[in-house]
Amino acid sequence: MIKAGIIGASGYAGEELLRLLATHPSVEVVAATSRNLAGKKISSVHTNLAGFYNKLIFENLSNDDIKTLCDVIFLAVPHGASMDIVPELLEKSKCKIVDLSADYRLKTAEFEKTYGHPHKDPREAVYAIPEVHDVAAELKNSKNPRLIANPGCFPTGATLAVAPLAKTGVLENVIFDSKSGITGAGNTPTETSHFPNLTENIIPYKLTAHRHLAEMKQEISRLQPGFSNVCFTPHVIPAARGIMTTAHVFTKEKYTTKDVKEIYSEFYENKPFVQLVDGVPSLLNVRGSNFCHIGIEAEAANNRIVITSAIDNLVKGASGQAIQNMNIMFGLKETEGLWFPGLP
Amino acid sequence: MIKAGIIGASGYAGEELLRLLATHPSVEVVAATSRNLAGKKISSVHTNLAGFYNKLIFENLSNDDIKTLCDVIFLAVPHGASMDIVPELLEKSKCKIVDLSADYRLKTAEFEKTYGHPHKDPREAVYAIPEVHDVAAELKNSKNPRLIANPGCFPTGATLAVAPLAKTGVLENVIFDSKSGITGAGNTPTETSHFPNLTENIIPYKLTAHRHLAEMKQEISRLQPGFSNVCFTPHVIPAARGIMTTAHVFTKEKYTTKDVKEIYSEFYENKPFVQLVDGVPSLLNVRGSNFCHIGIEAEAANNRIVITSAIDNLVKGASGQAIQNMNIMFGLKETEGLWFPGLP
Amino acid sequence: MIKAGIIGASGYAGEELLRLLATHPSVEVVAATSRNLAGKKISSVHTNLAGFYNKLIFENLSNDDIKTLCDVIFLAVPHGASMDIVPELLEKSKCKIVDLSADYRLKTAEFEKTYGHPHKDPREAVYAIPEVHDVAAELKNSKNPRLIANPGCFPTGATLAVAPLAKTGVLENVIFDSKSGITGAGNTPTETSHFPNLTENIIPYKLTAHRHLAEMKQEISRLQPGFSNVCFTPHVIPAARGIMTTAHVFTKEKYTTKDVKEIYSEFYENKPFVQLVDGVPSLLNVRGSNFCHIGIEAEAANNRIVITSAIDNLVKGASGQAIQNMNIMFGLKETEGLWFPGLP
Amino acid sequence: MIKAGIIGASGYAGEELLRLLATHPSVEVVAATSRNLAGKKISSVHTNLAGFYNKLIFENLSNDDIKTLCDVIFLAVPHGASMDIVPELLEKSKCKIVDLSADYRLKTAEFEKTYGHPHKDPREAVYAIPEVHDVAAELKNSKNPRLIANPGCFPTGATLAVAPLAKTGVLENVIFDSKSGITGAGNTPTETSHFPNLTENIIPYKLTAHRHLAEMKQEISRLQPGFSNVCFTPHVIPAARGIMTTAHVFTKEKYTTKDVKEIYSEFYENKPFVQLVDGVPSLLNVRGSNFCHIGIEAEAANNRIVITSAIDNLVKGASGQAIQNMNIMFGLKETEGLWFPGLP
Repeated sequence: MIKAGIIGASGYAGEELLRLLATHPSVEVVAATSRNLAGKKISSVHTNLAGFYNKLIFENLSNDDIKTLCDVIFLAVPHGASMDIVPELLEKSKCKIVDLSADYRLKTAEFEKTYGHPHKDPREAVYAIPEVHDVAAELKNSKNPRLIANPGCFPTGATLAVAPLAKTGVLENVIFDSKSGITGAGNTPTETSHFPNLTENIIPYKLTAHRHLAEMKQEISRLQPGFSNVCFTPHVIPAARGIMTTAHVFTKEKYTTKDVKEIYSEFYENKPFVQLVDGVPSLLNVRGSNFCHIGIEAEAANNRIVITSAIDNLVKGASGQAIQNMNIMFGLKETEGLWFPGLP
Repeated sequence: MIKAGIIGASGYAGEELLRLLATHPSVEVVAATSRNLAGKKISSVHTNLAGFYNKLIFENLSNDDIKTLCDVIFLAVPHGASMDIVPELLEKSKCKIVDLSADYRLKTAEFEKTYGHPHKDPREAVYAIPEVHDVAAELKNSKNPRLIANPGCFPTGATLAVAPLAKTGVLENVIFDSKSGITGAGNTPTETSHFPNLTENIIPYKLTAHRHLAEMKQEISRLQPGFSNVCFTPHVIPAARGIMTTAHVFTKEKYTTKDVKEIYSEFYENKPFVQLVDGVPSLLNVRGSNFCHIGIEAEAANNRIVITSAIDNLVKGASGQAIQNMNIMFGLKETEGLWFPGLP
Repeated sequence: MIKAGIIGASGYAGEELLRLLATHPSVEVVAATSRNLAGKKISSVHTNLAGFYNKLIFENLSNDDIKTLCDVIFLAVPHGASMDIVPELLEKSKCKIVDLSADYRLKTAEFEKTYGHPHKDPREAVYAIPEVHDVAAELKNSKNPRLIANPGCFPTGATLAVAPLAKTGVLENVIFDSKSGITGAGNTPTETSHFPNLTENIIPYKLTAHRHLAEMKQEISRLQPGFSNVCFTPHVIPAARGIMTTAHVFTKEKYTTKDVKEIYSEFYENKPFVQLVDGVPSLLNVRGSNFCHIGIEAEAANNRIVITSAIDNLVKGASGQAIQNMNIMFGLKETEGLWFPGLP
Repeated sequence: MIKAGIIGASGYAGEELLRLLATHPSVEVVAATSRNLAGKKISSVHTNLAGFYNKLIFENLSNDDIKTLCDVIFLAVPHGASMDIVPELLEKSKCKIVDLSADYRLKTAEFEKTYGHPHKDPREAVYAIPEVHDVAAELKNSKNPRLIANPGCFPTGATLAVAPLAKTGVLENVIFDSKSGITGAGNTPTETSHFPNLTENIIPYKLTAHRHLAEMKQEISRLQPGFSNVCFTPHVIPAARGIMTTAHVFTKEKYTTKDVKEIYSEFYENKPFVQLVDGVPSLLNVRGSNFCHIGIEAEAANNRIVITSAIDNLVKGASGQAIQNMNIMFGLKETEGLWFPGLP
C-alpha cells in the first residue's frame, strides 16, 4: 500500500482527497494535517466519512514527521504556502509530491508577474493534465520527477475544451465564459457564498483579470505556439460543485460540427476520463467523478465554434486529477480508485 | 407625511423596512442608522434601492438626534439592544416605537426564564398580530400606547395557523414543525448559510429548545387559557425567504376538513392579509408580501388536523407586520403601503 | 381608468401582467382570456393574487367581445398567434395593442428568414425599448400608432448592455453569453425545467442559432449602422427569474472603465429604470422589478469591455416593459405602477 | 459473476441500479429493459454512464428472455406491475428477485385496503430492511426465499429512525414529518417538479393519507406489537435527492438524550450503514451512498424525543438497499459494491 499524507486536510480539496482515497485499493492515508482541527477525528469533521478512517485524526505534524510517514504527499494548502514546504520535503526525503496549490504551475517569470511577488523556490514542476500531456514521459525527463503541479480548476476545464483545436493550430481568438460552483471559493463562509446572495442568482467576478488566465495562456500556447489571444470571465452559479466552460472559439477557417468532432475524437482517443457527448454536457453527469464531458457545435458562418465542457471542480478540477497524477507517478493504472460514474 | 427612523438599518429587517417604506404613500424615511455603514449611501449598500432614497445615507445617530427627527421609530436591532434604547425614547419624546426585536414580547418573568438574564425595562408593550388581537383597542388600553412589540417570525406563522382552533378551545396537543428560509438567521455569513452546506439539504436545529417556543405558548394560551401542550422544531430550508409551518394539531374532538374551514373562515373574516387556500399554501405565493396563506386538512380518525401556513419571514414575519402595526398606531388603513401581491 | 384586456392570461407573461396591473393606479383589468382555464377565478389559478381581482374570471372571449370591452389589449399568446389576431383588432376597434409575442418585432423579410414561414400580416409595429428609442415620437410617426412590438427578453438585456457603445459606433465584435432563469421557457413542465435536471446545473442551449439573435442584430444595427458582428449563446441557470447578460465587447479602440462609464451615464441619463452599478449587477436586486442594472469593466489591453446587465425576464424582459410601453402610449408617466424596488 | 437484469431501467431507480452496479465487483448487468428506450445505448440515455456499459442497450425483453439470462432480477417497475411479472418469474425460473415496487410489501389484506383493489398474487415476500430484520434468517424460513420486497423510501427513513425505541416497546405516539427530494416523484416532469414551482419553496402533500403510512405502521408494529399510533406528513423540498425524517416521538416514560443514544448504539451495533451522528444529520453527507445517519435529542419535560434521520431516497431508500438485499440473498458481504462515502 502506498502511504499517503494530506497537508491541509480541512479544506474542500483535502476533504475530497479523503473521500476519494477512502476507496482507493492501493493507497492508505496515514496522515492528515490541520492546525485548527488537530486532535479531532476525521469523521467528526467530515461527517460523510463516518464509517471510514476510524482511527485517523487530524494532526499538527511537522514536515519532518510527515515525510518519514509517507510515500506521497498531497499539498492542499493555500496558494503561497507550498513553496515554503516543497524544498525541504523534496530534498530531505524520497516522498513524491502532488501540489494542488498554484505555486508551481506557472513559469517563474509569469508567476511573479501574476502574483506580484517573487517566487521563493523557482524550480520547475511537471504541470499535469494527463489527457493533454504525456505525464509519465514528462516526469521521466524532468529535473524534478517527484513534483507535480496539479492544474487549477478553471484551466483544466478550459484547456480540455480547446486542446484539440489548439494542437491543430487553428485558434484565432478564444473567450472562455466559465461558470463555477461555489466550492471553488473554499469552505470559509463569505458574502458570495452566503445562501441568500447566491440562490436564484449568478455572480460574474474578476471579469477581466482572474489569475487562472495566465495558466490557460501558458498551457494553450504549449499546444499552439505563439497563440495568446485568450479572454476569460468567470461566474459563480448557485451550485456547490462543477465548472461549465463555454468556450467561444474563433478559428482561422470554417469548420462543420462534424469536422470538429473528428478532431476531438482522435485527440481524446484512449483518454478514458474525457467523454464527448451529443448536445451539451451536464454538470450533474460528472458530479463527484473524475470525468470531463465535452459538447461541440460549430457556427460555420462566423468561423466560430462553441465548445462546452463540464467537470467537477473538486474532482477533475482538483483532488481527482491529483490522484490520477499520483497513479501515473507510481506506475499504477491511471483510472485506479477513480473509475466510477458521476452522481446525477 | 409620517417621519420614520430605522435604528439598525443594515440588517435584513432594516433593509426590508426600507424596501417597503420606499413606496408607502404616507411615510418618509428620514433616518437610517448603522454604526458600520455610517456615511454610505443607502442604495450603495442595498443596491435593489438604486433609484430610491437618493439623498439618504446611513448615519451613526444618537437617540437624541433620532427622536427629534421622527414620528415613529422602528427598532431593527439585535435582541437585547432594544431595552437599552426604549426607555429614553419613550420618556423623552413623543415618538411611537415598533420594536422588531424580542425584548418586549414576553412577560417579564417568562423573558428572564427564556433568556437567562434580568430584563432591564420590565414595562409591558402591546404584542401585536393584528389578525389575532384588536391592536387598536389594546393600544388604547395600554399603559404604553406608544410601544408595540412586533412578533417573531416563527410565532407569527404558528399562531396564525392555530388561532381559530385555540379560540374555540379545542386544542389538546400541538407540534409545530416549521421550515424557514435562511434569511431568518441574519445577513452575517455562517456555516449554516454557507451555500454548499444548505443547497440540496434541509437542516433541523434547536430541535427542542428554540426561544420562540415561549412566545408561541404565551400567545396561544391567551386564546385557549391554560393550554401549554406545544412542541416546536424548526428547520432551515434551501430558500432565502419564507416560513412554512406544518402544525400537527390534536384536538379533543373529531373534525372534518369542512368544519375546520368554517371555523377559520369566520375567524379570519375581514382580515385581508390572511387568505385560506385550497390544498396547501406556497411560500412563493406570499414572497415579498404581507400575506399569510393557510391550508387545512383534517384526519378525523386520529382527531388530528394538519394546518399549513406560509408567510414571508421578512415581511409578515417582521418588517411588513411592523408597518401594518404602525399603520394601526397612526390610524391609517391597515393595508396602506402593503397591498400588493406576492412574487412567485 | 384605462380598461385593459389580457389575451393569454394563463402563462407567465399573463400572470405577471395581472400581478403588476393589480396595483397600477390608472388601469383596471376587465378581461383575461384563457381557453383552458375559462370559468376559473383568477386567484384560484394564480394564488399569489388571492385578495385581488375578486370578481375576475378567466374567459374564452372572442376578439369581438374583447375589443368592445378594452382600451388596451396585451397579447401574451404563443409566437405565431398574434398575427392572426392583430389585423382584426386594429382595424375594427380603437384599441391600443401591446404584443408580447415575437410576431411584429422583426422586419418582415427577417421574420420570414428566422421563422421559416411567411408572415401573415406584414405591417410594421413600433419596437419599443424606451431607454433606447423615443417611443412616443416613433408612435407619432408610425403608420400603426396603436401597435407596439414588445421586445424579447434576451434582446432587452443584450441591447441595453451595449446600446451606448453602439450609438458611439465603436463596436467591432460582440459575444453575448446570456444566462436566464427557467421561467423564460414557459410554465409547461419539460425535461429542462424538471427540478432534478436543473438544480446544481447550468444548461447551455441553442448555442449558435437562437431566434433572438436576429432581433439583437436588428436593434443594434439601428444604433451602429452596418454592424452585424454579433454572436449569442444562451444558458438556463437554476433560477426562476432573471437574465444576466455577459457581453464580451471588442471595440475598435481602447477604453478605460472610466471612459465607458461616462458614455453609459450620459446615454442613460433620465432613464429611471436603467441604473449603473459599481462592480457587477445582481439578479436579486432587480427581481420582480422593471429595472435593468448594468456593470462595466474594461480590459484595455485587449480592446475588450465586459458589460454585465441584469433584468427580470418576466418584468423588464416582458410584462413590465409592456406596461411601461402602455404608459407611454397613453401619455402616462413612464414609471406609473412600476416604481418599486426589486425583491432580493 | 452474478448476472443481473433490471426490468424498468429507464426510471430513477433503474438508473441508480445501473450506476451502483457499474462498480459492483461480483455483478454484471446483462439486461436492462425499457419499452420506450429499446434500442438505445444505456450511456446515451443516462449520460453519467458514458465510459461504462459500452455494449449494453435497452431492450424490450419478454419475461422468458430475461429469466434465462439472469441470476437476479431487479424490478424497478411502477407499482402494480410487479404482481403481473413475479409469479411467472418465480415459478418458471431459478431467478432471485428484488422487487423495488410496493406490490409485495404489505400483507395482502392491508394492501387491498391501502390500494383499493385486489392483489393478484397474494404470496408473502421477505420485507427487508437489513438493519432491522435478520434478512438471511427470514429468507431461510420463508416460503418464498427468492423474493424480496424492497422497502419504500419514506418507510426506510422512518423505521430506522424509531426502530430501537419500538423494539424497547416504549412508543406512545409518533409523528413523522418527512422531507423528500423531488426524485422520489419520478423522472416525468410535473407541476410539482417544475423548477419555478419548487425552488425557494417546500411543498407539503398528502398531509394525512400517504400510502407509505400503512407500511410504516406494519413494520413498527412488528417491533412493538399492538402499536399503531403513527401519523405521517410528507413534504417535497427543493433538492433532487434525500429524505430527512423528523420523528416527533412521544414515549411512555422520560428519557435523556444519553439514554436514547445508548439504546440506539446497541441496536445498531454491527450495522455498518447506520451511523449515529452528533447533532443533526445532513442529506449531503449521505448523498449517493447507502448510509443512514441518525441524530437524537430528547426533551425530557414533554416525554418527547426528536429523532432525525437522513438517507438518500434513491440509494438506501431504493436501489442501494436493493443491492444490499441482493448481497445478502447471494451470501455476499452486505457492503459489497456499496462501501463508499456520501458525496457532500
